Amino acid sequence: MAEVVITPRAKDYAQWYQDVIAAAELAEPANVVRGCMVVRPHGWAIWEKIQSELDRRFKETGHQNAAFPLLIPLSFLQKEAQHATGFAMECAVVTHAGLKTVDGKIELKNELEEPYVVRPTSETIIGHFFAKWIDSYRDLPLLLNQWCNVMRWELRTRLFLRTGEFWWQEGHTAHASHAEAEEEVARMLDIYRDVYHDVLAVPVIRGAKTANERFAGALETYCVEAMMQDGKALQGATSHDLGQNFGKAFNITFQNKEGVRDFVWQTSWGASTRMIGALIMAHSDDNGLVLPPKLAPIHVAIVPIYKKDDERVRVLEVAQKLAGELRDDGLTVKVDDREGMKPGAKYYEWERKGVPLRIEVGPRDVDAGTVVAKLRACDDQKKVLPMATLGVEVGKLLDFLQKALFERALAFRAANTVQVDSWADFVEIFKDEKTTKFVYAHWDGTGETEQAIKEATKATIRCLPLSGEGPAPEAGKCVRTGNPSARRVLFAKNY
Amino acid sequence: MAEVVITPRAKDYAQWYQDVIAAAELAEPANVVRGCMVVRPHGWAIWEKIQSELDRRFKETGHQNAAFPLLIPLSFLQKEAQHATGFAMECAVVTHAGLKTVDGKIELKNELEEPYVVRPTSETIIGHFFAKWIDSYRDLPLLLNQWCNVMRWELRTRLFLRTGEFWWQEGHTAHASHAEAEEEVARMLDIYRDVYHDVLAVPVIRGAKTANERFAGALETYCVEAMMQDGKALQGATSHDLGQNFGKAFNITFQNKEGVRDFVWQTSWGASTRMIGALIMAHSDDNGLVLPPKLAPIHVAIVPIYKKDDERVRVLEVAQKLAGELRDDGLTVKVDDREGMKPGAKYYEWERKGVPLRIEVGPRDVDAGTVVAKLRACDDQKKVLPMATLGVEVGKLLDFLQKALFERALAFRAANTVQVDSWADFVEIFKDEKTTKFVYAHWDGTGETEQAIKEATKATIRCLPLSGEGPAPEAGKCVRTGNPSARRVLFAKNY
Repeated sequence: MAEVVITPRAKDYAQWYQDVIAAAELAEPANVVRGCMVVRPHGWAIWEKIQSELDRRFKETGHQNAAFPLLIPLSFLQKEAQHATGFAMECAVVTHAGLKTVDGKIELKNELEEPYVVRPTSETIIGHFFAKWIDSYRDLPLLLNQWCNVMRWELRTRLFLRTGEFWWQEGHTAHASHAEAEEEVARMLDIYRDVYHDVLAVPVIRGAKTANERFAGALETYCVEAMMQDGKALQGATSHDLGQNFGKAFNITFQNKEGVRDFVWQTSWGASTRMIGALIMAHSDDNGLVLPPKLAPIHVAIVPIYKKDDERVRVLEVAQKLAGELRDDGLTVKVDDREGMKPGAKYYEWERKGVPLRIEVGPRDVDAGTVVAKLRACDDQKKVLPMATLGVEVGKLLDFLQKALFERALAFRAANTVQVDSWADFVEIFKDEKTTKFVYAHWDGTGETEQAIKEATKATIRCLPLSGEGPAPEAGKCVRTGNPSARRVLFAKNY
Repeated sequence: MAEVVITPRAKDYAQWYQDVIAAAELAEPANVVRGCMVVRPHGWAIWEKIQSELDRRFKETGHQNAAFPLLIPLSFLQKEAQHATGFAMECAVVTHAGLKTVDGKIELKNELEEPYVVRPTSETIIGHFFAKWIDSYRDLPLLLNQWCNVMRWELRTRLFLRTGEFWWQEGHTAHASHAEAEEEVARMLDIYRDVYHDVLAVPVIRGAKTANERFAGALETYCVEAMMQDGKALQGATSHDLGQNFGKAFNITFQNKEGVRDFVWQTSWGASTRMIGALIMAHSDDNGLVLPPKLAPIHVAIVPIYKKDDERVRVLEVAQKLAGELRDDGLTVKVDDREGMKPGAKYYEWERKGVPLRIEVGPRDVDAGTVVAKLRACDDQKKVLPMATLGVEVGKLLDFLQKALFERALAFRAANTVQVDSWADFVEIFKDEKTTKFVYAHWDGTGETEQAIKEATKATIRCLPLSGEGPAPEAGKCVRTGNPSARRVLFAKNY
């Protein structure tokens, strides 16, 4: 394949993003399937690691996986009015089953009595089954999750960030009280925060969405918002308090401890392959992909350096031995023994693919019992490491990188976050087309003001930060209208 | 939920199968989505274990996972003629995107220029991308796999065995020579065999399909065939030698070492949630599900036995301690401390769900430092085990069960397999509607004879056994026509 040249971030951020994905062979547009993508092995391996980290936490908190149908009867969509409105335009619709050949051409055969939509999300079909399975408070809480593909026919698509088909998990739970459902919503939001912080090394702000930005059919939507390197916000995952809306739409009732029938209280929460987009835009650089070690499909690339054949044998033997030792420590190690390729070209390739640590071994290293190591990011210095304690040293370097990436992203966010109190300053900040900031400003709480600010600046309210996030609560005046405001909210341009 | 009564196998085998699935809460028909199913948590947990066992073996043999689009342009299906014919009638078709509300009712909005089919399998769409990615022999072999849902609009459906939507893995590989592709086909068939034998504890026979039963578009289809408890055969997985058929249809070429362009040689291979059906029908009994320990979501259920409150405290404390020790050994353990439920009812529930080992702990056991253990199958005796060495003893019992299930299934198959040389005997054996056998008989190799035998007896050729499978090769005369035959083939009624 032709080599991909990576456009520098400063020149064209959007193009840089695409180039990083192409150069690391993470994914590509499907083209022949409108708005959809193919996730290639290196991209899917990252997704498998994200899945495993989330799945473990879901199971530790008592959730079980299940699988519900891909297709949803069209009539189901109508049962919850807001939900139907919210998703109607985005649905792919199955109208026929079976094909026939007419004059050598394939044509549609049997039209279905009722069309199905390809699930854009599964609240409706899962609601139908919850109604069958739940009868008493003893059946609650019901804590399910599914890993699957969903489809939303989007007009403007972008690899990982917004594609027609994407892969995600959707948790769906039913509870006996609103308080329990609210606890669940917060618990799952915290799990997303933990995975962003501890695994993706991407700092996020937890908050509530405004009414305009809520999930269609929810009482409240909570989110985690991350800053990308262009200062824009990316919504990283959502957790919804569905109240009794779907319970009423699908007649999901239970007999409570007092013997009275009531509708269940539900939640749903999801995170998708979009997380890979967040990962790329938070850490990568003009040399390509940067991965936190916890998500790297390959942790260490060992590049042997030699000129003569006898050197090659000696060096490769040591490289394989070191690789074996590191593998025993649980690391994934690639010994790059490709012939006819210069070490520099190999360095460049592993760099583009985001391998956290590169180790070089040459004849002199073998004699000295050392190797040369270089981290992919956060530290430009090459290090000479003794072979005897390589496992320990590599472990330290990978731990360092995992933490340093988070600290770097946190510092970047801090440097690009401001509190703004005047409308003039607000407008000025969001004028810049290339870089933008997170702005904490007062808002009067009305949808009209929210809309007016969006139209004037393209900045939207990303969230009403939860307690402990963003600046300490203090009353003030709305940056746009001057009306009273209880606390600052987070404004940003967004993906 | 109402308790499910399990119909005995001898009374109605098909009903027994459904009852076992319902009683163990593995899955249920979706009903509102024609022919589709919901896989419930206990069923999905078994699937996750099967996935993990297969996935590890795929990765160890150099395969990588990726994800290709759910939807396939209708025109792609037409490019390989046999493939199109084979799958046309089974395709669900997406014709519209977007819905609108007309007089409060949802209606379809935008008709697509070209319809898409929901993938029944992915050779065509993957062929399209292989053509983009493969240019030289250096790009080969390309060894990919995807875990996904597929859809085939079947007329008669049955949970796990044949459903509209099902979950599977499909491997797709491209090679520089036919010999390499043939090796891959055999390698993957052997992996399926290994997982059936070592994990599902279900013996299988590897063989080639007849031309009539080949995958649409393949040169050869190989399969593993398992015997169910009614003597019928179940096709457990398939591995296809696609030759250059898809290479030619999708123009997938490479430059070989000699600088000449040639079409790639491809394989595909798949195993699905059908494996759960095989598992159920091979091992389960009139008391419900029986699981080999390697696939059991819960290995051990500990049931505390007590009458008074102080007994309860003592017994539960010990039960939890023992559970902790077993968990440290890597086992999944459930301490069934539910109140208001008698031990017998608990035994019955874990039995229905197929938990391999039940442990009872009462006050006297606590005093004596022992527990009572009972295996789910293959051994009716209750055993008194010392707490001090419980981990070791439990490990032995689970190992015993894993092996004993395989041996039992192997013995059952041996007892129900015959060699038949006369047409009268052949007809007689397949007359019985309730139980049936595996029959090794000579066949003249023609499709006409194969069809005539099927029409007369409902028995089909399950496979032409590979070397080492079934009776030793010996020449003979076709059981139907008397024409010469090089070796016996496997006949059976099938799922």
